[in-house]
Amino acid sequence: MGSINYSGFSLFNIQFPTKLVAHVEINRLQKLNAFNRDTWTQLRDIFNLISIDPNVRVVILSGAGERAFTSGLEISPQLMALLNGGDYEEERARFITRRAIRDFQDSISAIENCSKPVIGLVHGIAFGLAIDILSATDIRMCTSDVQFSVKEVDIGLAADIGTLQRLPKVVKSLSWCKDVVYTARVFGAQEALVHGFVSKVAENKQKGFEDALELANVIAAKSPIAVQGSKHLINYSKDRTVQEGLEYTATWNAFAIGRDMKDAIAAALSKAKPRYGKL
Amino acid sequence: MGSINYSGFSLFNIQFPTKLVAHVEINRLQKLNAFNRDTWTQLRDIFNLISIDPNVRVVILSGAGERAFTSGLEISPQLMALLNGGDYEEERARFITRRAIRDFQDSISAIENCSKPVIGLVHGIAFGLAIDILSATDIRMCTSDVQFSVKEVDIGLAADIGTLQRLPKVVKSLSWCKDVVYTARVFGAQEALVHGFVSKVAENKQKGFEDALELANVIAAKSPIAVQGSKHLINYSKDRTVQEGLEYTATWNAFAIGRDMKDAIAAALSKAKPRYGKL
Amino acid sequence: MGSINYSGFSLFNIQFPTKLVAHVEINRLQKLNAFNRDTWTQLRDIFNLISIDPNVRVVILSGAGERAFTSGLEISPQLMALLNGGDYEEERARFITRRAIRDFQDSISAIENCSKPVIGLVHGIAFGLAIDILSATDIRMCTSDVQFSVKEVDIGLAADIGTLQRLPKVVKSLSWCKDVVYTARVFGAQEALVHGFVSKVAENKQKGFEDALELANVIAAKSPIAVQGSKHLINYSKDRTVQEGLEYTATWNAFAIGRDMKDAIAAALSKAKPRYGKL
Amino acid sequence: MGSINYSGFSLFNIQFPTKLVAHVEINRLQKLNAFNRDTWTQLRDIFNLISIDPNVRVVILSGAGERAFTSGLEISPQLMALLNGGDYEEERARFITRRAIRDFQDSISAIENCSKPVIGLVHGIAFGLAIDILSATDIRMCTSDVQFSVKEVDIGLAADIGTLQRLPKVVKSLSWCKDVVYTARVFGAQEALVHGFVSKVAENKQKGFEDALELANVIAAKSPIAVQGSKHLINYSKDRTVQEGLEYTATWNAFAIGRDMKDAIAAALSKAKPRYGKL
Amino acid sequence: MGSINYSGFSLFNIQFPTKLVAHVEINRLQKLNAFNRDTWTQLRDIFNLISIDPNVRVVILSGAGERAFTSGLEISPQLMALLNGGDYEEERARFITRRAIRDFQDSISAIENCSKPVIGLVHGIAFGLAIDILSATDIRMCTSDVQFSVKEVDIGLAADIGTLQRLPKVVKSLSWCKDVVYTARVFGAQEALVHGFVSKVAENKQKGFEDALELANVIAAKSPIAVQGSKHLINYSKDRTVQEGLEYTATWNAFAIGRDMKDAIAAALSKAKPRYGKL
Amino acid sequence: MGSINYSGFSLFNIQFPTKLVAHVEINRLQKLNAFNRDTWTQLRDIFNLISIDPNVRVVILSGAGERAFTSGLEISPQLMALLNGGDYEEERARFITRRAIRDFQDSISAIENCSKPVIGLVHGIAFGLAIDILSATDIRMCTSDVQFSVKEVDIGLAADIGTLQRLPKVVKSLSWCKDVVYTARVFGAQEALVHGFVSKVAENKQKGFEDALELANVIAAKSPIAVQGSKHLINYSKDRTVQEGLEYTATWNAFAIGRDMKDAIAAALSKAKPRYGKL
Repeated sequence: MGSINYSGFSLFNIQFPTKLVAHVEINRLQKLNAFNRDTWTQLRDIFNLISIDPNVRVVILSGAGERAFTSGLEISPQLMALLNGGDYEEERARFITRRAIRDFQDSISAIENCSKPVIGLVHGIAFGLAIDILSATDIRMCTSDVQFSVKEVDIGLAADIGTLQRLPKVVKSLSWCKDVVYTARVFGAQEALVHGFVSKVAENKQKGFEDALELANVIAAKSPIAVQGSKHLINYSKDRTVQEGLEYTATWNAFAIGRDMKDAIAAALSKAKPRYGKL
Repeated sequence: MGSINYSGFSLFNIQFPTKLVAHVEINRLQKLNAFNRDTWTQLRDIFNLISIDPNVRVVILSGAGERAFTSGLEISPQLMALLNGGDYEEERARFITRRAIRDFQDSISAIENCSKPVIGLVHGIAFGLAIDILSATDIRMCTSDVQFSVKEVDIGLAADIGTLQRLPKVVKSLSWCKDVVYTARVFGAQEALVHGFVSKVAENKQKGFEDALELANVIAAKSPIAVQGSKHLINYSKDRTVQEGLEYTATWNAFAIGRDMKDAIAAALSKAKPRYGKL
Repeated sequence: MGSINYSGFSLFNIQFPTKLVAHVEINRLQKLNAFNRDTWTQLRDIFNLISIDPNVRVVILSGAGERAFTSGLEISPQLMALLNGGDYEEERARFITRRAIRDFQDSISAIENCSKPVIGLVHGIAFGLAIDILSATDIRMCTSDVQFSVKEVDIGLAADIGTLQRLPKVVKSLSWCKDVVYTARVFGAQEALVHGFVSKVAENKQKGFEDALELANVIAAKSPIAVQGSKHLINYSKDRTVQEGLEYTATWNAFAIGRDMKDAIAAALSKAKPRYGKL
Repeated sequence: MGSINYSGFSLFNIQFPTKLVAHVEINRLQKLNAFNRDTWTQLRDIFNLISIDPNVRVVILSGAGERAFTSGLEISPQLMALLNGGDYEEERARFITRRAIRDFQDSISAIENCSKPVIGLVHGIAFGLAIDILSATDIRMCTSDVQFSVKEVDIGLAADIGTLQRLPKVVKSLSWCKDVVYTARVFGAQEALVHGFVSKVAENKQKGFEDALELANVIAAKSPIAVQGSKHLINYSKDRTVQEGLEYTATWNAFAIGRDMKDAIAAALSKAKPRYGKL
Repeated sequence: MGSINYSGFSLFNIQFPTKLVAHVEINRLQKLNAFNRDTWTQLRDIFNLISIDPNVRVVILSGAGERAFTSGLEISPQLMALLNGGDYEEERARFITRRAIRDFQDSISAIENCSKPVIGLVHGIAFGLAIDILSATDIRMCTSDVQFSVKEVDIGLAADIGTLQRLPKVVKSLSWCKDVVYTARVFGAQEALVHGFVSKVAENKQKGFEDALELANVIAAKSPIAVQGSKHLINYSKDRTVQEGLEYTATWNAFAIGRDMKDAIAAALSKAKPRYGKL
Repeated sequence: MGSINYSGFSLFNIQFPTKLVAHVEINRLQKLNAFNRDTWTQLRDIFNLISIDPNVRVVILSGAGERAFTSGLEISPQLMALLNGGDYEEERARFITRRAIRDFQDSISAIENCSKPVIGLVHGIAFGLAIDILSATDIRMCTSDVQFSVKEVDIGLAADIGTLQRLPKVVKSLSWCKDVVYTARVFGAQEALVHGFVSKVAENKQKGFEDALELANVIAAKSPIAVQGSKHLINYSKDRTVQEGLEYTATWNAFAIGRDMKDAIAAALSKAKPRYGKL
């Protein structure tokens, strides 16, 4: 249970604004926080570390600077070569492309698979990959100036890193979802709120961070066994039949119920604030 | 097809406000309608009976008294012993805990598996188990004073009786859903309406009952073959691919189509109100 | 890649209001656009043709005349005979009924399976089969005078052509969905908008068509590889786990990524409007 | 953990030939052990009791007398009335038939769902329902005189209590499986052995029981946590993807690993025979 | 229920060796019964017709001539053009290839989807497509001279018309299955029998046909409701969980149980041979 | 496409007996090739490297020395600490245990996920983890002296690294499979052959290697696109419905068909041996 070392992530700022809350900030200002390969690899490694870090209970994910959460994937020659299968030719190149997509998907899935809840705080430009990333977070908030766009069709491809899988399960209307996917049009905070993509809109980035941190602190005070179990079980169950979700949940709670329940009840009886062990 | 006997359920009031409509009321006033083991066993038995009672076509489920639909699970020493595996030790106790959870889940699933539509009418306190129960009903209505809370994380566990399985399929903003699950915060009628958890808000309990009964009467006048088939097929299909739902539905209607369709069409042609046999 | 012949569909008008956009209009005016067997067979054949027609990128589906999108299935003696199993008796007749339902389902699924996005534009009466059809379109718009109704329970059967499978996945609230299914009540444009069934409401049919065409033109200007892939992948993924959707998507894009991405990026760099090959 | 009372099952003999092994014998000699409704209800109740009886670790299921394991379902007027929907007419009767089949299925599934392994020992006539029952056991043995038949097509129906679901997953060749299902022909011990339906053939019933008891004793000496977990996890996993099975298994063993592993290792180190607590 | 016209299938012989049994023979002798596009289209159309032909209860599928069941897919310039996407270029050509494969798959699936049992009788060369076709039949028999080969890897592709989906579910050993798939080696009758791919080996083609016809006649004498239901339910259930198979089966038998059961029981009581209506 | 460096794996020998064939040998002789944590981590890394190594087309996996393939998991204090949750207490320790199992599972799954076929060659002792590993290989061979045992119940736990998921899908008699799982008894080469767990038995280890290498060379001469596609598609399809497998396969071959098919056909026409590019 030694403390985990988060240095060495050049493209992110990682801070701990309050005890048990990590703030992960995409930090590639000069590129509007666009993602190159290192960015997505670092993103995966950071969330894998946080997932097993007993000193973190909640994560806030945002973008540095005033202009963008992230402008999406940086279309560099290196990326194009990778997506085009490197040195291989024809069908073999397509095998390599498939492998690269799978690898990229796994990086983004690290957010969903992170055992701790992740709050996405979005401002400014949030294009393409931004939606893939945000759809993998648990709770989304934004500022009133945000500009969302499922940008992929505008660069000639169907989104393949998670938006098409997660967005329809996250928002309220499939009709609206297909509208924004097929047109790649920009939509703002209010539209995102109405359709349930975000839960809250703040007037600016600082207020947004205050809101996110307040929410994070509330969650961080709860039993981590209860919160981490809830995240895992909601994600597991939403894709399966109710019966399968119930059976898995009973098996899960067979090992997870115990100490925290006793602590919570004891605290309630003594009108004290419960304190929970690290996880 | 003899009439079914609903006496012997000490913790519920069961009445028939109109022909073909049953009103099931949780009645443990001195405990804010909290559930002990008998309550959940009786709940299961009542809904299993209604499911096969040809004299009932629709059910309204509500809580007695002014203060609460239900305050949730009563944390009694007996319950704690059961959840802690009784006389067994360590891993064996956890086997027993798992079995107890499965049994409790089956009781709540009796609402979903009941062949007749169930309208949940909620007022006052609706905490913890209240959400598990309501998520298993078909249509939800509430009064303006309602206080909903997915309370489980506050007692140190991930909800395991159905909320985490059903709530995300019942409302569509996963961001909002995770917000209320992770924080256990109280939310009110308006928020429940906006997110689709309830379909209607009444100003008080009596008005709410009038609304629920009016809706129940409308449904009770319809073909029970059509309504019960619709409930079963929606529940079956929402968890599966469209193709699987379609194939199952064709197989279902191969036995269910017939008399009621003829009766309905004959009634329509003669401008009469259709009358349907019991089921 | 010769041009496809759309003559011979007596019950539909098929036009091309702009390049790459097809307008399919149900045209059985004297029957309020009700469907008989020929109508559903023609619907299937038209959408199967469009699906492989490289000259079409988007479809608008609407109803002719002022009064109705469609009043639903026409209850004719022929239909009743078909649904009742034709010359067969008892259980054998039910085998035949099942086969007829499967065949009818396949016709409606042709809209969902059509490789091109379909915009449903609805006005006036939209009863029963109208909802089955619309739930299978991608994006729905309506006029302010629309009257929707999931009418099936009023003719004594559970809807079996797609509404019970698709509607709960298309709108935001299962409580609302079951309300309109069990009661067969009429609901209007505003309610449909709030619950996410439609994305936009126009004041009249002409305005509605202008909106639909504007949207269609936007989509038609995009890469057809990107748009068709997005439709296929959203439909595939919404019914499956996120992981299954991701793996399938990587395999899909292994063949679909290439030329259009290069064209799109080249156009972006040169500030030109991208032009894409037919598909 | 008091001892469970198995009296009151008039149609079965229940004995305990060795400590921790239960022998359940179908005992309706004058009817060749045919099943009426009471038989299947008692079967369900017995296996539900054994499932939670800490004094039983393995079950042997066989038929009393020399002539038959069971000749299958007894076609009585009461059964026919039940299957024909009782007092209801037409489609309503079919609802009731469906309900009766579901209830009957649950009775047979009690064998599969029993937490303890069940060894089926078969002799003589084993027709129809016999195969449904045996397919739900864990390990099958037979005598050389056995006569198996999937008899259902000979009474004009597709088997609906489990054979069509379980048999293809239990034996080696789907071609052979369909052969015996479509023809209802009788097959013997050797054919059952070659195709993996049984694991062992004994020359007569007594030898068969000795074999079954020997196997039962071996299993009964093992850790019940290990054995019951293995049964549950094999049954869970065989119907799902490898990945789903693995994830569920990790969650299961998170609560199940512990004491028995320590006891087993300690016993191995000290060359002693391990002794495990009841479950 | 008029009689169905099977003329017009130039590449197949269709005969009725006994009442209710159809014999479909691949008849393209000069090409070792290799398949071109017309062959697979005709195969689909024939099995779709048989599926709804009340005068057929069982089908035997074999190859004409002495040398081959079928040597597989004929690699013609037309086929290559089709598989290579016709006139389209690059990714667009791959869309077309995918569509062609899907279409070809559907043709072979017509055997599996045919409501009547299909007995595959194989002799001589049975390469590539032969295995795809045979895996889709219900029961397989062969002659002692048969030469099977999963030939696809030898022409540089993974089999995509059904072998990789169906063969592993049809035979007993995945190790053996992968051996014959990865090596494309020829294997004979005895090996096919041991691994459960065929149920019976005859010494020559005529004997094989006698065996197949004898089996077909046995099945044809059974209730078609029972046999067709069994085929559908086995195929449905083998790919799903036991619980899903059971629920679907109960729904199926709710419409399928009736007359044939009564007829079968009445015949049994009167020691008469039952006679069943057409289906 | 530079050559991959396999040095640094202290617990394995890695050799290339023929071009394109890798031989991976578990090499921890003094411990009967038992696995400690380093062993499973190295196993994962080796197979992940081979998976993307264009110079390898087939893998043979065996154990060094005369006595054992592997005696299974080494029960060391470190392992016990890991499985017991390290420094954490109670439920938290169980979270950690679950994580360790998941990690261990992923290591073994690296064999199944390796894009190249893996031939398992087994001799001597093959206990516990040996079966988990072998079930994840594609083709299994053994020597006549082999001693297999699903050993886990003898150490007080249900196997959790893959045996319970994969073994029942690899052999087809579930009765036999449960027999060897519940009893942990040793079984030999002949029994493994009869039940399809191995495809071939050699008289000694050297002969076994010759057999394995001969098979590996045959497979290595085939199109790697065809072979790797076949492995992936069989593994994908065996866990899913036929229809899902078919759709995925069509999408796969849309990118995988091409060059190798042309090369294979050209070689066949010119009677030459085809040569395929690396992958």
